[in-house]
Amino acid sequence: MSLNLQLVSWEESVAKHSIEEFVASAVDGPEAVPLPERIAVFDNDGTLWSEKPMPTQLHYVVQQWQDAIKADPSLAKRQPYRAVKDGDLAWLGRAIDKHYDGNDSDLELLVKAIVGLVEHNSVEDYARSVEEFYRTAQHPSLKRPYAETVYQPMVELLRYLEAHGFTCYIVSGGERDFMRSITEEYYGIPPERVIGSAYGLTYDWESSSLRYAASLSFFDDGEEKPKRIWSRIGRRPLLAVGNSNGDVPMLDFTKFGPRRGLSLLIHHDDDTNRGDPPYDAGAQSALAAAADRPYIRVSVKNDWTTLFPFTVQQRRDQ
Amino acid sequence: MSLNLQLVSWEESVAKHSIEEFVASAVDGPEAVPLPERIAVFDNDGTLWSEKPMPTQLHYVVQQWQDAIKADPSLAKRQPYRAVKDGDLAWLGRAIDKHYDGNDSDLELLVKAIVGLVEHNSVEDYARSVEEFYRTAQHPSLKRPYAETVYQPMVELLRYLEAHGFTCYIVSGGERDFMRSITEEYYGIPPERVIGSAYGLTYDWESSSLRYAASLSFFDDGEEKPKRIWSRIGRRPLLAVGNSNGDVPMLDFTKFGPRRGLSLLIHHDDDTNRGDPPYDAGAQSALAAAADRPYIRVSVKNDWTTLFPFTVQQRRDQ
Repeated sequence: MSLNLQLVSWEESVAKHSIEEFVASAVDGPEAVPLPERIAVFDNDGTLWSEKPMPTQLHYVVQQWQDAIKADPSLAKRQPYRAVKDGDLAWLGRAIDKHYDGNDSDLELLVKAIVGLVEHNSVEDYARSVEEFYRTAQHPSLKRPYAETVYQPMVELLRYLEAHGFTCYIVSGGERDFMRSITEEYYGIPPERVIGSAYGLTYDWESSSLRYAASLSFFDDGEEKPKRIWSRIGRRPLLAVGNSNGDVPMLDFTKFGPRRGLSLLIHHDDDTNRGDPPYDAGAQSALAAAADRPYIRVSVKNDWTTLFPFTVQQRRDQ
Repeated sequence: MSLNLQLVSWEESVAKHSIEEFVASAVDGPEAVPLPERIAVFDNDGTLWSEKPMPTQLHYVVQQWQDAIKADPSLAKRQPYRAVKDGDLAWLGRAIDKHYDGNDSDLELLVKAIVGLVEHNSVEDYARSVEEFYRTAQHPSLKRPYAETVYQPMVELLRYLEAHGFTCYIVSGGERDFMRSITEEYYGIPPERVIGSAYGLTYDWESSSLRYAASLSFFDDGEEKPKRIWSRIGRRPLLAVGNSNGDVPMLDFTKFGPRRGLSLLIHHDDDTNRGDPPYDAGAQSALAAAADRPYIRVSVKNDWTTLFPFTVQQRRDQ
């Protein structure tokens, strides 16, 4: 195996050794697993790339809303456009907090404005719009193209698993077709192996094409993740990686199957200013679950020697 | 290319030559298509295997109902169990006819009794039950295991396409997990490339497993086929094969994309007693659509030299 298929950005610690031992046992010996059944699943936001200060998809949506306000300033009289115009991104966060308190009125405004962006668009038109975003967008705090906000240790893990006969899938709460535009280039994962939340689709007989409906078909998070894994793959994964509360069912589904599985929980505990700030928000119940389950905890601070294809300092010096 | 990757069970006619010419143009020359985009989609019932006198799945369902009646004879007081007990399979057909006349009362009984068979079952338990069915079941009129009711010319087409870099998917109205038990063995198509109708799923935290809900999540027919193709694959197919009214959107979606596509419509017109009887039922609007669209019509009678891995006569002689 060539050097670039080693986990070079991983410290020589329990996390790396657990992965290597597990993969070796899946390839050879009494617990070897047939090739087609070596399935690995990866959350995206916070697992394969940075999700702070906001998921990339929200950046795209806000930019689209800003364009819509430019075209029709009267939109800014109502939410969520007013919040976007005023730069009040905290309003978006509060809409979600209110949802957990049983008040969905703001969340409904939010979802309605999100699906309104794609309604009637063909899947090809949407893909072009997303590709345009990625050509120019910069990560707001890391100040670099999103292509350089992928976690280098995870890209190495994808290649390492493939080199040992694994097939890797993304299983994310992010919107499926938004991810599909870049997963091949960023992660080497083709569109047929991208599982995510989905807008409704309608078939247009006149143009023989698919267009989006003004609806969210499902939100691929929590219990939905194992359900979508089954729908799409029809196999229970052998290895899973996540970082949030919504990843627990997927990590359990992988760990507690009839066969030995490996579930990794990434913990964003890095206070060294190498990249993302440390955070537990959205991961508290996953971290609590990990305490009484045989997950392997991956510390960003202690288990990864580097975060991005270029370090933040290298990028600043360019 | 070795001999067994030729279309040996196809006559030297327009259908075969159209396929060969199209595939050659996708591989080489000005219209060559990159490998990952060479996607082919196949209907199952009536396209990859026999669907007469009834789809295999209905055979399984009826057998399960018969077992349920043995365990609880009181079931036979009501439909659809009474029809099954009396051997009145025409009742099942009438329930569907009534649906098209706007009366869903019998269809609701039917669907309720079908989803009742799987409710609370884990996906693994259902797979075991289906595998048991296939081990012993015989096709009711061809009197042979279902493995020998696959169309030999279509299996050759799957291998021929693969040999030219195509990736083949099944896109069927049949239930996805029912097909997944046998598609690898019968067609060389793994579970992740089987698209079909689906029961609802629930995630069981206690056992970290997936169980069926008492619901049909969607019926993968008509407009649903291109929608599911997009959800699962994220690409527009290059080649599609179907035989029924419900295949027209998938054939159009393939034929009328931005790139040249090939859509094949199989016509069950074989009156030679080699296998299935000739029939147009369920295909009338597809045949009408084919008259004003550039589909390639495949005549079972004239374009296929043989139907099954063993001919009906060979099987009778065994």
